Amino acid sequence: MKRTDYCLKEIAARFGGQLLGNAEITVNQIATLENAQAGHLTFLASEKYRPLLAVTRASAIIVSTADAEATQLPRIVSDNPYVYFAKASAFLNPPAVVVPGIHPSAVIEAGAHIDPSACIGPNVVIGAETRIGAGCVIMAGCSIGAGVTIGIDARLYPHVVVYHNCILGDRLIAHSGAVIGADGFGIAMTEDRWLKIPQIGRVVVGDDVEIGANTTIDRGALDDTVIEDGVKLDNQIQIAHNVRVGAHTAIAACVGIAGSAVIGRHCRIGGGTGILGHTQISDNVEISSFTMIGKSIREPGTYTGIFPFNKHDVWRKNAAQLRHLDELAKKIKLIQQEIETLRKES
Amino acid sequence: MKRTDYCLKEIAARFGGQLLGNAEITVNQIATLENAQAGHLTFLASEKYRPLLAVTRASAIIVSTADAEATQLPRIVSDNPYVYFAKASAFLNPPAVVVPGIHPSAVIEAGAHIDPSACIGPNVVIGAETRIGAGCVIMAGCSIGAGVTIGIDARLYPHVVVYHNCILGDRLIAHSGAVIGADGFGIAMTEDRWLKIPQIGRVVVGDDVEIGANTTIDRGALDDTVIEDGVKLDNQIQIAHNVRVGAHTAIAACVGIAGSAVIGRHCRIGGGTGILGHTQISDNVEISSFTMIGKSIREPGTYTGIFPFNKHDVWRKNAAQLRHLDELAKKIKLIQQEIETLRKES
Amino acid sequence: MKRTDYCLKEIAARFGGQLLGNAEITVNQIATLENAQAGHLTFLASEKYRPLLAVTRASAIIVSTADAEATQLPRIVSDNPYVYFAKASAFLNPPAVVVPGIHPSAVIEAGAHIDPSACIGPNVVIGAETRIGAGCVIMAGCSIGAGVTIGIDARLYPHVVVYHNCILGDRLIAHSGAVIGADGFGIAMTEDRWLKIPQIGRVVVGDDVEIGANTTIDRGALDDTVIEDGVKLDNQIQIAHNVRVGAHTAIAACVGIAGSAVIGRHCRIGGGTGILGHTQISDNVEISSFTMIGKSIREPGTYTGIFPFNKHDVWRKNAAQLRHLDELAKKIKLIQQEIETLRKES
Repeated sequence: MKRTDYCLKEIAARFGGQLLGNAEITVNQIATLENAQAGHLTFLASEKYRPLLAVTRASAIIVSTADAEATQLPRIVSDNPYVYFAKASAFLNPPAVVVPGIHPSAVIEAGAHIDPSACIGPNVVIGAETRIGAGCVIMAGCSIGAGVTIGIDARLYPHVVVYHNCILGDRLIAHSGAVIGADGFGIAMTEDRWLKIPQIGRVVVGDDVEIGANTTIDRGALDDTVIEDGVKLDNQIQIAHNVRVGAHTAIAACVGIAGSAVIGRHCRIGGGTGILGHTQISDNVEISSFTMIGKSIREPGTYTGIFPFNKHDVWRKNAAQLRHLDELAKKIKLIQQEIETLRKES
Repeated sequence: MKRTDYCLKEIAARFGGQLLGNAEITVNQIATLENAQAGHLTFLASEKYRPLLAVTRASAIIVSTADAEATQLPRIVSDNPYVYFAKASAFLNPPAVVVPGIHPSAVIEAGAHIDPSACIGPNVVIGAETRIGAGCVIMAGCSIGAGVTIGIDARLYPHVVVYHNCILGDRLIAHSGAVIGADGFGIAMTEDRWLKIPQIGRVVVGDDVEIGANTTIDRGALDDTVIEDGVKLDNQIQIAHNVRVGAHTAIAACVGIAGSAVIGRHCRIGGGTGILGHTQISDNVEISSFTMIGKSIREPGTYTGIFPFNKHDVWRKNAAQLRHLDELAKKIKLIQQEIETLRKES
Repeated sequence: MKRTDYCLKEIAARFGGQLLGNAEITVNQIATLENAQAGHLTFLASEKYRPLLAVTRASAIIVSTADAEATQLPRIVSDNPYVYFAKASAFLNPPAVVVPGIHPSAVIEAGAHIDPSACIGPNVVIGAETRIGAGCVIMAGCSIGAGVTIGIDARLYPHVVVYHNCILGDRLIAHSGAVIGADGFGIAMTEDRWLKIPQIGRVVVGDDVEIGANTTIDRGALDDTVIEDGVKLDNQIQIAHNVRVGAHTAIAACVGIAGSAVIGRHCRIGGGTGILGHTQISDNVEISSFTMIGKSIREPGTYTGIFPFNKHDVWRKNAAQLRHLDELAKKIKLIQQEIETLRKES
């Protein structure tokens, strides 16, 4: 692909920052300090990488105010080099232009409405009465059920499945293998058999949401499962029926959220975490990776529950005591009493 | 969709329960106490929601004997309002009528036998010698390998994959992205390289099983992987080769079961749980969410192993001690001896 | 399927080992001791199964030197019966012959190069400028993006998705639902909103790699995500952007590896394990199932961090103390001081 060259001052004109060095130098791509070549713009966002300043072959760099003089490369000085890098990279790597049209192999059922500016790929299936907004890209093999609404400029990578009646907002990005709107796990035991409870709610997804590969979001049992605006979901996340995820919350991979949990806004949830059903997590909560949340969190802050690993033999000895922790605590109490007795006697 | 109205006495005639209030009132859908509208039947299955009785706009309600007089709404009094709700909801939300036929885009290989009453969706691929039973619905993009047998009235949502030779029972429900019969993880190390062991067993699934979205069930290495009748599997579960899951066991999302584990009948396994290979879990075992089962469970009961979370700073201090638990236990033992000595001396 | 008969001496001639008993007996398949029938070759690789020697109906068996006289069946004596079994099974169960050709329903975009010996299944989509090597089998519904390279003799089961520009080596096996090259989870917070960071790296996979069902491997943010030669990945593994997995490392199901982690060569990682971002795991490390790796591991060895389960009531008491472990440790310190005082006094 032919890349477009921009001189550094064009970038600074667009995104701000103080320009130092040769403002006419051109760049056409972003790269790491280590692997940048001529024509690349790089950035320094962590002290850890400062030694690479001396060896990078980048043409220009984004640095913090503190590092303004740490290099002689043509540079943009920014309060937040990481955010600046994100903006510059988005500028240098625009999404491919959408070529409107419906691939002849796509199957569009009766009453579906597809905006003429949308692009529908090969083998896509779009159900009856479904509406696909302007500028959407629905890639190969996606299957969209009946009665679905998708907003404008959404991008569904190959093999996304959306079940009937779900509502997806503007600028949604959904990666391959994501399944939106499958039945929640609703069963009732009667006469030693499980009875399936129809899952008649929907999944309602706000604007500017991203959904990772193979992530699953179940439809509500009766009411809806709701993902609010700006939520970012990584891969292989499971969101059960009737969960609500608050706006601008980011959830890393492999998180499982059980039914009817309510997650606040602007939360950050680390990878591999589990959240029990019917819990409530307030706004601005950060949960560390690998942490199991077994009860509600009412206050902002960082919460952690990582069980530490060790060399196998050490772990084995410590783990054995874990099974007797309550006894250990009782022994300590008893010892304290005995010492009290001894002290009185002495 | 046009909904059908039923008067309350029709429902009570069908499912039992004592009718109180206006038996002629009609309902056409189930809803929660909070969101019910006129024409909706609601239910009270947990004390927690009792305050909503005063404000619900439902036309009728299902309540327990204890709550028979807690509302003046037209009502059905039942021993188990939750099961009654499940039955009434299934009645009011019947599955869509199956329209028999094979979509012209489907690819049916030689020797496959598809019952004329089955519905095969767009882009479905059905392998050689595979048999699809009466009333089955195989939705868009499913890929069924060669030599597979699927019983009657099964429903495979879009993008289910079934590998060759697997046997699936009657009334199976499989959600999108489920993969049934991929190779188990069988490898042997020789001369510093991994050698793949052919996985020549099958997956055999009984009747009335449900398999959640993106759940994977591996085929057996030599013998079969077996899922017995009535098992309910939520999303993103991994079942390794040669596992057996006993009848009517329910497994919540994100559970991983390693090779050759044998799970009993009527077990309930919480979300995010892991079960080690070659373990045996007896019948009627309940395992809490987020619990790691590292050895066999021989007796019914509830088993738990959730590592508690805490504010990050508190966790850090406690976790530091976890690495020294064995030393702590030894110190306590020493202290006890010293106290004994002191006591004798005093 | 018609199976081919081989006499035992043909197998021994091919794979070595000492032949005892009737060398002319024929076998055509491998089976377990328990389920073998006439015509089957079985094996004894674990003491646990020795009692089955007396009852097996196999025609022949592979045994260790120590067990050479434990049975009178026609037998091959081998230093490593499990590896011998793996080799014999691969011999008796060769992969289906590849029938070259492109299914008429496949969509091949401009400039794609597909070796004439490859087999492209129904509804496969192959992007522009993508190269598919000799002997590859790309099964139904796979979606391969633009600019991808796949080596020779790769086998992609139905519904594998490969995003643009990824490089996949020779003899790759990828199971259904695997997603290779989706965007990494790269976001930056600015003005209370998440900004997406373009993910412009690739996934580069070496030779002889196997990737399990529904496993996801994200493309790099700037540099590549790398899976080296001979790596074996089970199902539902998540590998984040810029991870490197060293050659011949085997990873069991449901493992999550966070961004930029570097895993050494010849590691063995148990199921359900999590590895934090930016950690480094040295070569020859074994990590037990269900273990959370929160910091780098610099030395070979076995590492474990399984939190033990218990009967629910016992767990509850022990877990309560976990929240006070630091206090317990302080109490013990205090007690030691008091005892010291008492001792001096007495």
